[in-house]
Amino acid sequence: MNRRSLLKLVGRAGGTAAVFATMNAMGLLHHQATGMERPNLPTGSGTGVNVAILGAGLAGMTAAYELTKAGYNCTLLEARDRAGGRCWTIRAGDRIDESDSQQTCGFNQAEHLYLNPGPARIPYHHQGVLSYCKEFGVPMQVIVNENRAAYFQDDKAFGGQRMLNRRVVNDSRGYLSELLAKAINRNALDAEVSADDRERILTFVRSYGNLDADYLYKGSTRAGYATAPGAGTVAGDRYSPIDLSELLKSDFWQYKMHFAEGYHQAATMLEPVGGMDQIAKAFERRVGQFITYNAQVTQIRKTGSGTRIVYTNAAGNEQALDADFVICTLPLSVLANVDADFSPAVQQAIAVGAESYVKAMKIAFQADRRFWEEDDYIYGGISWTERDVTQVWYPSAGFQQPGGVLVAAYIWTNSIGEKLGALSPAQRLEAAIADVETIHPTLRQETYTAKGVSIAWDKVPYSQGGWIEWEGDSRSSVYPALTQADGPIYFAGEHLSYLTGWQEGAVLSAHQAVSGVAAQLQALQA
Amino acid sequence: MNRRSLLKLVGRAGGTAAVFATMNAMGLLHHQATGMERPNLPTGSGTGVNVAILGAGLAGMTAAYELTKAGYNCTLLEARDRAGGRCWTIRAGDRIDESDSQQTCGFNQAEHLYLNPGPARIPYHHQGVLSYCKEFGVPMQVIVNENRAAYFQDDKAFGGQRMLNRRVVNDSRGYLSELLAKAINRNALDAEVSADDRERILTFVRSYGNLDADYLYKGSTRAGYATAPGAGTVAGDRYSPIDLSELLKSDFWQYKMHFAEGYHQAATMLEPVGGMDQIAKAFERRVGQFITYNAQVTQIRKTGSGTRIVYTNAAGNEQALDADFVICTLPLSVLANVDADFSPAVQQAIAVGAESYVKAMKIAFQADRRFWEEDDYIYGGISWTERDVTQVWYPSAGFQQPGGVLVAAYIWTNSIGEKLGALSPAQRLEAAIADVETIHPTLRQETYTAKGVSIAWDKVPYSQGGWIEWEGDSRSSVYPALTQADGPIYFAGEHLSYLTGWQEGAVLSAHQAVSGVAAQLQALQA
Repeated sequence: MNRRSLLKLVGRAGGTAAVFATMNAMGLLHHQATGMERPNLPTGSGTGVNVAILGAGLAGMTAAYELTKAGYNCTLLEARDRAGGRCWTIRAGDRIDESDSQQTCGFNQAEHLYLNPGPARIPYHHQGVLSYCKEFGVPMQVIVNENRAAYFQDDKAFGGQRMLNRRVVNDSRGYLSELLAKAINRNALDAEVSADDRERILTFVRSYGNLDADYLYKGSTRAGYATAPGAGTVAGDRYSPIDLSELLKSDFWQYKMHFAEGYHQAATMLEPVGGMDQIAKAFERRVGQFITYNAQVTQIRKTGSGTRIVYTNAAGNEQALDADFVICTLPLSVLANVDADFSPAVQQAIAVGAESYVKAMKIAFQADRRFWEEDDYIYGGISWTERDVTQVWYPSAGFQQPGGVLVAAYIWTNSIGEKLGALSPAQRLEAAIADVETIHPTLRQETYTAKGVSIAWDKVPYSQGGWIEWEGDSRSSVYPALTQADGPIYFAGEHLSYLTGWQEGAVLSAHQAVSGVAAQLQALQA
Repeated sequence: MNRRSLLKLVGRAGGTAAVFATMNAMGLLHHQATGMERPNLPTGSGTGVNVAILGAGLAGMTAAYELTKAGYNCTLLEARDRAGGRCWTIRAGDRIDESDSQQTCGFNQAEHLYLNPGPARIPYHHQGVLSYCKEFGVPMQVIVNENRAAYFQDDKAFGGQRMLNRRVVNDSRGYLSELLAKAINRNALDAEVSADDRERILTFVRSYGNLDADYLYKGSTRAGYATAPGAGTVAGDRYSPIDLSELLKSDFWQYKMHFAEGYHQAATMLEPVGGMDQIAKAFERRVGQFITYNAQVTQIRKTGSGTRIVYTNAAGNEQALDADFVICTLPLSVLANVDADFSPAVQQAIAVGAESYVKAMKIAFQADRRFWEEDDYIYGGISWTERDVTQVWYPSAGFQQPGGVLVAAYIWTNSIGEKLGALSPAQRLEAAIADVETIHPTLRQETYTAKGVSIAWDKVPYSQGGWIEWEGDSRSSVYPALTQADGPIYFAGEHLSYLTGWQEGAVLSAHQAVSGVAAQLQALQA
């Protein structure tokens, strides 16, 4: 008796649940694909097989793209009237709907005047996303993440005055190096530093901190000039070093000063030319014909022969879609409210995950004058403040052109997201201006609230959160259940990865789900 | 008696030299302009005044642009058949002439396939250049200068194997922080760190180096992953930290690791879209009608009434140009060979300066496959090696597009420039490949020497060097003479600035020269 005949017998006796339990026991539901490589399914291998894909974000469209290439019949059910999900770009006239507010974007029309309300950066090593960008001809440009001309601001230090990034970073390096050199020269580290290494490490420390011949930090041109060097006899005057104890009063010295060394934040960071949604649109051009828009999933059923998806269509009527397999990419915060035949372990993982979404927010203004460039020579990058807005992003698109979109707040602390998210759109803009004025005092004169927009992701229907953060032991306790098939149902999306909050997680998890479907199909056909 | 009448009397009695000596004594030749601001001369203020501008590089064209706006009659004498000087871009079919060789660039034709053989970067604070780019509509993009995905290579460490930038940088930060934390915890720095600051500085150091709870460096995700995190259960494996004593064997720890903190090197660094010569071409569109090309200056004379320039024209005939003022932008290495009526102090400064030019070199290849992106995920930036080629630059233009130009050597050490410059173009390419293979082992297979070019700037006619470096006490001894007018003659160019080697120096020095001419004219007319 072959495997297929056996499973048929099991099915006749015990139904689908028994089939999948048997398959699971036989190891047929476990697949080893990491998702790092594209599935590369054999052409025609999916002919006659129906797959329902829930959600036409990057995960759903990646899955559809790979499966349809192999001949699968895919139907994507998308609750919105557009594809892309959080991979989205807001331009002049676009609508932002939250559960209790609507905004229309008042930016001027221009290629560089856009806001990526969701993901806005792609690290160089996110080769899943980048390989599709290359294949689809989506041109990429650098997004400046770390900019020495940007600022730090903390009400606890420097009287609340903004302080230049390059001064904070390089004076810190200087003091740190000076202290270490002193310790080495006092023989306090003889146990750690061999006599052989001692001279080399002192040379390094001097170079690292730009110390003088006596290993003292007396300031450095790295921190910049109060009066710039120029032509003729203008040699310039560099800044005096910031006082160490004043530096220590601030919280710049926490991760903010080092964030650009992070695995996902270090150069080179990229963005699609013209907005992040260029990626979604490129996918949509390839799989758009398989998408049913305005389709809100209400039920996910396991049937004897596969699955049945019930959804509300654009007309508000209930409709059903039968499929052999399901790839479910709905955020868990959304999925938790869908009536579904999931296993208890999956139900539990969804319930925990649904509560683990980040209340991320962005607030942005279009300015008609790029005052950050003209007045402060800031071309892209991020300023940091201890105030609620947390980060100010300067556009890496449209340098020196008329107008620009300033992200006046990027927030991922739940307590702040909750507080500002509760405000009306107009109140949020006011709150952001008040905070950002500490860095750019002319902000209020340079922008119009008519050209301001905000987004509180937890109030955005069909997203209900920025991204997931699996906290505490949930990675080891509940999360693993979602990485396995729940019968004919596979899960994908950024929440199904160790790259949560990144599009790469969506793409790689889609690869895994696709490989899972193909493996299960092969097992069933064996 | 007014000033003008007095000077006329002096002139009648003692000639031009006496006039200028008198003016100098009266303080009329000293002007305070720093060059940071544009001269903004009154419209029409130069009507009827003739200015000869020697050299149509950025300094000469900036001067011509500002002077002609004010009504001056300018004539630019340019030895080449193109404007821009070292602000130049090499593309398919372009010729590179050196004193003993000719090359024709074999790159394919494409907008992103170019080499900037001279200046290739513009720091964000070089607002002189950038303001013209803005005014002229020259679009700017980011040039990646520091890239954590690039490499260091040193034959003295790691068996000569390339080592990832982010590992070197972040493991160094870790060790440095761990050592400092130990010293603080051993009370070795109690004199420097107050009890109040102690906890904050320890918190800082832990954050700086990504230390564990015991202040030990056990590696960090900042250094990257040997196996990247991905979808499902793929949590990834980060690199083990590099051994401290092995790190110390290398010379990475000299300035190479810190260069991107430099005043002129820190983010954001910019480049014109499509090549640096877009700036020269933008200037040329505005002042090209005043340029006499193929005009090689042979004499600079002071006459009773102003100046006379003698030059060899395109037909090889000697020609003369009379002018009220001269702005001389020729590199001192070139100017030293021109027969000129300069003061002894100026002659001496030129002689010293002529010997102070950097033997800068670049060697570049077009590859048909961007293997550095496809195989190593390097998007722009620089790898460093202790070998002769010094730096490998990856293009920041044309990400993910077909083909790219790799700068396989950027050299500014005179001894290396001399050694490699002495080789034939073909031999230089071979030498570069041998060095760069230590970082990119497939280089030889990926490139063709037919698509390789090199430039040794000291062998380039009309440049004779990369840029000036005023060394030792020459800044205080001979240099100041050039910052003053030598009678009706002013000097400009990167060599007339504290920004030598940067286009900004050329532009700002041109502003100073223009202000000098205008001030002298005003004084004469007073």
